[in-house]
Amino acid sequence: MPTEHRPNPGYSFTVRVQYVNDPGRLGELTTAIGAKGGDISGIDIVETGARTITRDLTINAVNADHSREILNAIQALGITINHVSDRVFLLHLGGKLNVEPKTNVRTRDDFTMAYTPGVARVSEAIQEDPSKAFTLTIKKNAVAVVTDGSAVLSLGDVGPAAALPVMEGKCMLFRDFGGVNAWPVCVDVPDANALVATVKAIAPVYGGIHLEDIAAPKCFEVEEILAEELDIPVFLGDRDGTSIVVAAAFLNALKVVQKRRTESRVVVYGVGASGVGTVRMLRAMGVTDILVCDEEGIITPARPDLDSLRTKLAEMTNPAERSGSLKDALAGADVLVAVHRSNTVTREDIEGMAKDAIVFALATPEPDISPEAASGVARIIATRRTDYPNQINNVLCYPGLFRGLLDVRARRVTDGMKIAAARAIADCVRPEALHEDYVIPSLFDPHVPTAVSAAVQKAAVADGVARK
Amino acid sequence: MPTEHRPNPGYSFTVRVQYVNDPGRLGELTTAIGAKGGDISGIDIVETGARTITRDLTINAVNADHSREILNAIQALGITINHVSDRVFLLHLGGKLNVEPKTNVRTRDDFTMAYTPGVARVSEAIQEDPSKAFTLTIKKNAVAVVTDGSAVLSLGDVGPAAALPVMEGKCMLFRDFGGVNAWPVCVDVPDANALVATVKAIAPVYGGIHLEDIAAPKCFEVEEILAEELDIPVFLGDRDGTSIVVAAAFLNALKVVQKRRTESRVVVYGVGASGVGTVRMLRAMGVTDILVCDEEGIITPARPDLDSLRTKLAEMTNPAERSGSLKDALAGADVLVAVHRSNTVTREDIEGMAKDAIVFALATPEPDISPEAASGVARIIATRRTDYPNQINNVLCYPGLFRGLLDVRARRVTDGMKIAAARAIADCVRPEALHEDYVIPSLFDPHVPTAVSAAVQKAAVADGVARK
Repeated sequence: MPTEHRPNPGYSFTVRVQYVNDPGRLGELTTAIGAKGGDISGIDIVETGARTITRDLTINAVNADHSREILNAIQALGITINHVSDRVFLLHLGGKLNVEPKTNVRTRDDFTMAYTPGVARVSEAIQEDPSKAFTLTIKKNAVAVVTDGSAVLSLGDVGPAAALPVMEGKCMLFRDFGGVNAWPVCVDVPDANALVATVKAIAPVYGGIHLEDIAAPKCFEVEEILAEELDIPVFLGDRDGTSIVVAAAFLNALKVVQKRRTESRVVVYGVGASGVGTVRMLRAMGVTDILVCDEEGIITPARPDLDSLRTKLAEMTNPAERSGSLKDALAGADVLVAVHRSNTVTREDIEGMAKDAIVFALATPEPDISPEAASGVARIIATRRTDYPNQINNVLCYPGLFRGLLDVRARRVTDGMKIAAARAIADCVRPEALHEDYVIPSLFDPHVPTAVSAAVQKAAVADGVARK
Repeated sequence: MPTEHRPNPGYSFTVRVQYVNDPGRLGELTTAIGAKGGDISGIDIVETGARTITRDLTINAVNADHSREILNAIQALGITINHVSDRVFLLHLGGKLNVEPKTNVRTRDDFTMAYTPGVARVSEAIQEDPSKAFTLTIKKNAVAVVTDGSAVLSLGDVGPAAALPVMEGKCMLFRDFGGVNAWPVCVDVPDANALVATVKAIAPVYGGIHLEDIAAPKCFEVEEILAEELDIPVFLGDRDGTSIVVAAAFLNALKVVQKRRTESRVVVYGVGASGVGTVRMLRAMGVTDILVCDEEGIITPARPDLDSLRTKLAEMTNPAERSGSLKDALAGADVLVAVHRSNTVTREDIEGMAKDAIVFALATPEPDISPEAASGVARIIATRRTDYPNQINNVLCYPGLFRGLLDVRARRVTDGMKIAAARAIADCVRPEALHEDYVIPSLFDPHVPTAVSAAVQKAAVADGVARK
């Protein structure tokens, strides 16, 4: 296999092959694909001729290069390739969302009630009492998934149009996991001010705003202004979504190693949205011994090179004003949350951590340190990858969180709600099931969204931000 | 009945009544409702007690005052009213649209293909070739229905939140009549510049922009800039949608009275979006003898009070530079398109029109002149009302028009496409069916959207604005 990763449906293709149907030929074909590491998930006969046969083979590969290698191996057998179709692209064809009326307009009476003249009375009712927009319009259950496309997945600044397939995917998950009507708002704007102005302008339609894949530190500024100026909750997915799930895994990991939250020593490596979010979450949960590191080492007020974000982080963390490298920071630490860049943490860096070390390596597409490299040093390892245990995925958080926010018509998101969400996610792993390899529930655990929604609603009422 | 109008489902309510079930009591009840002009559309038994009975009566009224009168008449019989529910409000409860994934995310494989990591390749493909957004995202079939809520129906400036039920209704019609995914974009902005900036910002997600219920003349400015600066079609519903349907009715009405388009004398009364649109459409169709009137009479360059819009209209019309009142303008005219205000045109005004006069009275909620008042003077009368023949409703236009625009990936809307749409709508009334009371097809004629879409696609190709 070209890389250490496994074949997956993210690189699944269907190849139509034609060959003279001699005995043993199919075996040669499947053997050749297997020898190249391709994972055959389906074989179908398309047509049988006098001597030839045409088949569709559906194959999972590791990546695009791997797909090509497999196709070359097929051709090397003298087999004709008629057609290759990429199953991922087929799935995305025409977009992944529809807007559907809840009732159809088939008759004059339908028209009169749903549209004119009946609708005029509904408009008047909202004009008289604006809070009625929450009952009489889609605002009740609609979230804008907003991006400017400046930091999409690990691709970087691809722009709003190329970000759309990702936002559509997010909207699908909102619906399937939380029953929320989410709509992609991919904006083409020059700067943070224009982004803020656009979101404020479109806000009347929505009961909540989910900001996603916007570059740091711009995203912090945008979230801060919008949360202040809008009367609906504004959620920064990359910061708050990830950090809530990190916090859930953190709570459960500490239970496994039997350490106390308030006594644990935590190092956060990376000052992007997830790093900043993790620092905020852990502090809100009473963790005080936190060191933040960037490429230059521990962030401390003594460093002359701090920008405003790092200055703020220095104020929030490192009470003993320690300085040094990442390795120095990790000496004796209980937990590392690495959200920096793929393969930037070494086994040596983590070797000095305390007994029963917990390492979350959350860079994408590759972790900051591979589970293989951390194995034997760290007792508990979590990544964002699907092909290792303990996957940190913010899908565990936002569908249920917004379900709760919308159901109580929350005005904003509070720390209390975030902590409640983290606890709810953590508690979806039953105490008797807790284990080094199971500190976070599965993405597909149906209890998670319901539990998160209930916890968030309760916290919203307690924090006085529920309108209902 | 309190007004001349008929009971309709736009004022439909269900009243739960309880009374001692003596013989003849139901007859008294229904007679009382009928005497007040209420139209009973359903009677259901909810519960029968030892002596009492509880029933739900569903009643169409004329308006809100009329509903109250009917309820008072019921109470006057000594019948207890337990509950009244407004069927229109019930229909709008929770909003009228859902966002639905085309495929569900139920398994890890679904997730990997629809979202991460599979989606990254789709984003990269669009980044490399932006035109792929038209095949790989919802842009292929998505229209933004944009308003600032400044001129909603006949309600006026109700603002973006109160406009939302109307825009949702429009989106329902887009889907049910044209198969288009339309999404409401109700924007809270201070001025035309901010409106333009917002629409430009959100444009990447959409294949077309439908502007609606934006006050004139602001809407003209906004449309002009957006059409110039965006590479997707921008359509001004109140101007272009209405005027296309007016043009269709005009073409058919002239056939009925056997007059020639290019020789006909037309008066347009009103300088709002529909008035301006009608002038533009008729000119594009070769009608040259057009007079535009406002409250001060005929618009002519000689008038000292002309603003920029009227100056432009004066240049486009009135080649003989005539002046005078609306009545003067109408002397000898073949067609009046009145889009001014309810009940502002008198029978006397139109009495001097040519033989076989055609009168379109399109103000809402009441026509500029009622069909009763015009009867006997005008041979053909059209209004926007559902309760008279010849209803001019722009729903006949925009679902099919956008279906065509999206299917050819049009860059913009041309006059050629508008004329093609008007002809297609007109031709949906078969020649042998043409009649004074049938110059425009029914709202529910299933052939209209298909015919309009096909005509628009052909015109887009002819005009060189089709990308496909």
